[in-house]
Amino acid sequence: MQAVYVSGVSMTKFGKDPRPLAEIFCQAALEALAASKEQEVEALYIGAMNPEEFVGESNIASQIADAMGLTGIPAMRIETASSAGAAAIQAGFQAIASGYYRRVLVLGGEKMTHLSTSATTRILAEVIDKQERQCGATMPALAAMITEKYREKFRLSQSRLEAMLCSVALKNHLNGSRNPLAQFQQAITREAYLASKLVATPLRLYDCSPITDGAAAVVLTSEKTDVRLSGIGQGTGPLSLRERDNFTSFLATRIAAVRAYQMAETSPQGIDFAEVHDAFTPFEIITTEDLGFFPPGKGGEAAIEGKTAFDGPLPINPSGGLKARGHPVGASGLAQIVEVVKRLRGQSPSKRQFKRGLTQSTGGLATNNFVTILERADSPIIQNPGLPLFSPPPATARKKAPPPAPTSDEGEIETFTILYVTPDGFLPPLALALIRQADGRLIMAQGEDSTHLKIGREVYLRQIDDLYLFTVKSQLQKVQESLKRLLRRRTASPSEEENPVDNKL
Amino acid sequence: MQAVYVSGVSMTKFGKDPRPLAEIFCQAALEALAASKEQEVEALYIGAMNPEEFVGESNIASQIADAMGLTGIPAMRIETASSAGAAAIQAGFQAIASGYYRRVLVLGGEKMTHLSTSATTRILAEVIDKQERQCGATMPALAAMITEKYREKFRLSQSRLEAMLCSVALKNHLNGSRNPLAQFQQAITREAYLASKLVATPLRLYDCSPITDGAAAVVLTSEKTDVRLSGIGQGTGPLSLRERDNFTSFLATRIAAVRAYQMAETSPQGIDFAEVHDAFTPFEIITTEDLGFFPPGKGGEAAIEGKTAFDGPLPINPSGGLKARGHPVGASGLAQIVEVVKRLRGQSPSKRQFKRGLTQSTGGLATNNFVTILERADSPIIQNPGLPLFSPPPATARKKAPPPAPTSDEGEIETFTILYVTPDGFLPPLALALIRQADGRLIMAQGEDSTHLKIGREVYLRQIDDLYLFTVKSQLQKVQESLKRLLRRRTASPSEEENPVDNKL
Repeated sequence: MQAVYVSGVSMTKFGKDPRPLAEIFCQAALEALAASKEQEVEALYIGAMNPEEFVGESNIASQIADAMGLTGIPAMRIETASSAGAAAIQAGFQAIASGYYRRVLVLGGEKMTHLSTSATTRILAEVIDKQERQCGATMPALAAMITEKYREKFRLSQSRLEAMLCSVALKNHLNGSRNPLAQFQQAITREAYLASKLVATPLRLYDCSPITDGAAAVVLTSEKTDVRLSGIGQGTGPLSLRERDNFTSFLATRIAAVRAYQMAETSPQGIDFAEVHDAFTPFEIITTEDLGFFPPGKGGEAAIEGKTAFDGPLPINPSGGLKARGHPVGASGLAQIVEVVKRLRGQSPSKRQFKRGLTQSTGGLATNNFVTILERADSPIIQNPGLPLFSPPPATARKKAPPPAPTSDEGEIETFTILYVTPDGFLPPLALALIRQADGRLIMAQGEDSTHLKIGREVYLRQIDDLYLFTVKSQLQKVQESLKRLLRRRTASPSEEENPVDNKL
Repeated sequence: MQAVYVSGVSMTKFGKDPRPLAEIFCQAALEALAASKEQEVEALYIGAMNPEEFVGESNIASQIADAMGLTGIPAMRIETASSAGAAAIQAGFQAIASGYYRRVLVLGGEKMTHLSTSATTRILAEVIDKQERQCGATMPALAAMITEKYREKFRLSQSRLEAMLCSVALKNHLNGSRNPLAQFQQAITREAYLASKLVATPLRLYDCSPITDGAAAVVLTSEKTDVRLSGIGQGTGPLSLRERDNFTSFLATRIAAVRAYQMAETSPQGIDFAEVHDAFTPFEIITTEDLGFFPPGKGGEAAIEGKTAFDGPLPINPSGGLKARGHPVGASGLAQIVEVVKRLRGQSPSKRQFKRGLTQSTGGLATNNFVTILERADSPIIQNPGLPLFSPPPATARKKAPPPAPTSDEGEIETFTILYVTPDGFLPPLALALIRQADGRLIMAQGEDSTHLKIGREVYLRQIDDLYLFTVKSQLQKVQESLKRLLRRRTASPSEEENPVDNKL
């Protein structure tokens, strides 16, 4: 396989950008070409999540080729939801590695800030499983439900969890204050974090990445440069939350990471720093665990202890991450590559010499994730087979059955959130919960009210058209049910009760 | 470069399909896997043009991986407008050729028929340059304007052009009648063609491909099979019509074809049959010229003479083409590959043994085109360097200036159409013309009425907000203008008139 190197890189100042999308793309593209040894490329690979709905433009690849004055050049748009920029790098990588092209320009970008928050939330929510979306689930809502499950699984108090999330937010905003291209360049305080409004319990505004315009550009080449793209991997995960058997770890990241580590002949211990997809602060914590940097449940502590700080032993998101750098969805996966390359080249405010950096990008609710490893081309390859290998379960293609209707009118709360920023058509506060039914299957449901929610609580479940609704059972209802069961038992004959098998004969 | 072979292929019955998009994809995918020697693939490459707006689904790659029961598998969506299926083949090709994967499943699909024709037309029109779209230009409108220009350039009478377009329509519908998976399986008569309503002069309903649901699937592998993907090329072209210097040939096809022929070490003479993008009948004619099968202006005659018929020397669209097989936009480029592979394998109703087939797919208004060459792996490579090489003009990236406003209030018609099927917000008949201004630049404008249109006619041009309007000058107006000019000349002093240089000194 042809080795793939990185030449020029660039990104626009992330934030609110009044220019048309094609012009934002052009700036990053022309800067990356200008920073390259050779200014000619053979093809464009363009990551964009949803220009169709964000800016009403289809055919974005042709449009950008044309807008750059490169009419004629092959140009392809790649999309994997919010990891589209990373997907474009993978497609560009394969194009060079195959020998089909020698030099390609990879672009990623999105324009979002001109729309209302509710419109943007609705568009972003189209990545979510339909049944869960119909209940009013948004990306923050599902992230919040995962966070609540994380808290329960690792037996964290509310305040301990809050301290973990807060430490990630504070770190990334502090890092963003050093990054002149970040959307937010102000450090925030613990008080500001705690004062920020709840978006979806337990997540606050400062736990969520912002809405952003921006583009990034990377020239990939077969000619040796100072930075080599040494490992790349992709994985997917279940679309819906209800079909996951593990809520606090992302299958898609684990699959992608194994491939990338294997290809780069390295391990988590061989990585000097990483840019990861902190669309929500808990996702940074979970991702640092999925990447093998910290054991499950220990990513939050590592953040509190400063292990992932800018000058810590393993800097995570030294650029500010999606949290502070901003999150133009189609650009983020590529902006991470730009940040890592700049740091490897010593073009960042850190004094340390870094040899190998990693990026991790998440599409949708961790349904389509990428891990990319970049290293200085002069660094020796470290043979470090310390990685616990993860093999995805062997799967045979088959048509999946549609989600079955609930089998019972009762269940218990697997995880939940109360949503304060709701999509159009839903009034806050909106309670959402994943309900485990008697047969073990999960269903997403909307709370008839938003009080008394707790993991493990028993609920009544009812269906109105396609919507499932739940109500937490009250103490009184539970006592009444116990009485009813007791009464049924007393009126039943002893033989029926104690010897059902005999009765069948 | 690792050689790339085709294993199992499949496509759904094209037409109106009531199933959800993911289910349509699944059928094609599972059938292609079942027809393959090995049922396991390492990744999915999915071509889809606009599931965001057609079916309200983003994150389609993850959704399809999940729906196929292949949760975990890398899955990427590729988009280049209506050539997305061909783009997915190219991405899948590069993935195998690089050695990164050994076996991938390439999918292409779209679901469109559940929407109204005007909604579908609006979504499809998002591929068009914004200024031209604002005038009411649709894909049929622009295709019609290209056709009118073709007629003028090659000095064809209305009836001769009509005979050419009709012969393509009749041929492809006849071919479709032999294809059990085609949307239309009825041959049509010349009378039916002539009786079909005008969509955009000179194009009739039977010149335009239908609105269709469907999916196609192709397994690509590094393991030798009976069919090899031997050449593949992509090119882009100007987004707008007004920036083209050649209306009757598509730059994007010519660039793609040169690359594909070079790679396959063949030429137009080495191709036994082809599936080309006949979204409009004139596009089949132009494409057979751009591919080097016939000289410029001779593609229509070839169709009339039966050279491109099912049993002709060079069958074009023996499957029925987009015209009769149907055009689920994201599927079409891949369905072409399926058709060619089946024919090479002798699974088609023809008695001939074919060795090498070509597919040509068009994205948008020929802004993003692909050419792919497939051949029987047992066929000897024909060295035939008879191809006139086309080199795209060397280009340096630069930010293009926005389209300038018209410089004069007069101009002449470069080409035009009268649109009878208009997008929402425009009433038929709608006259559209490309107007050449005095400085040579072109602008798309809407006619204030739809009479007296002809290429070369002088018009008045005026601007209302972003919209440009034209009126054809009447004989009286022209006489009046001549008189005015004459009067101005007489009142001007002889020196000013005859010796302007002297006066400046």
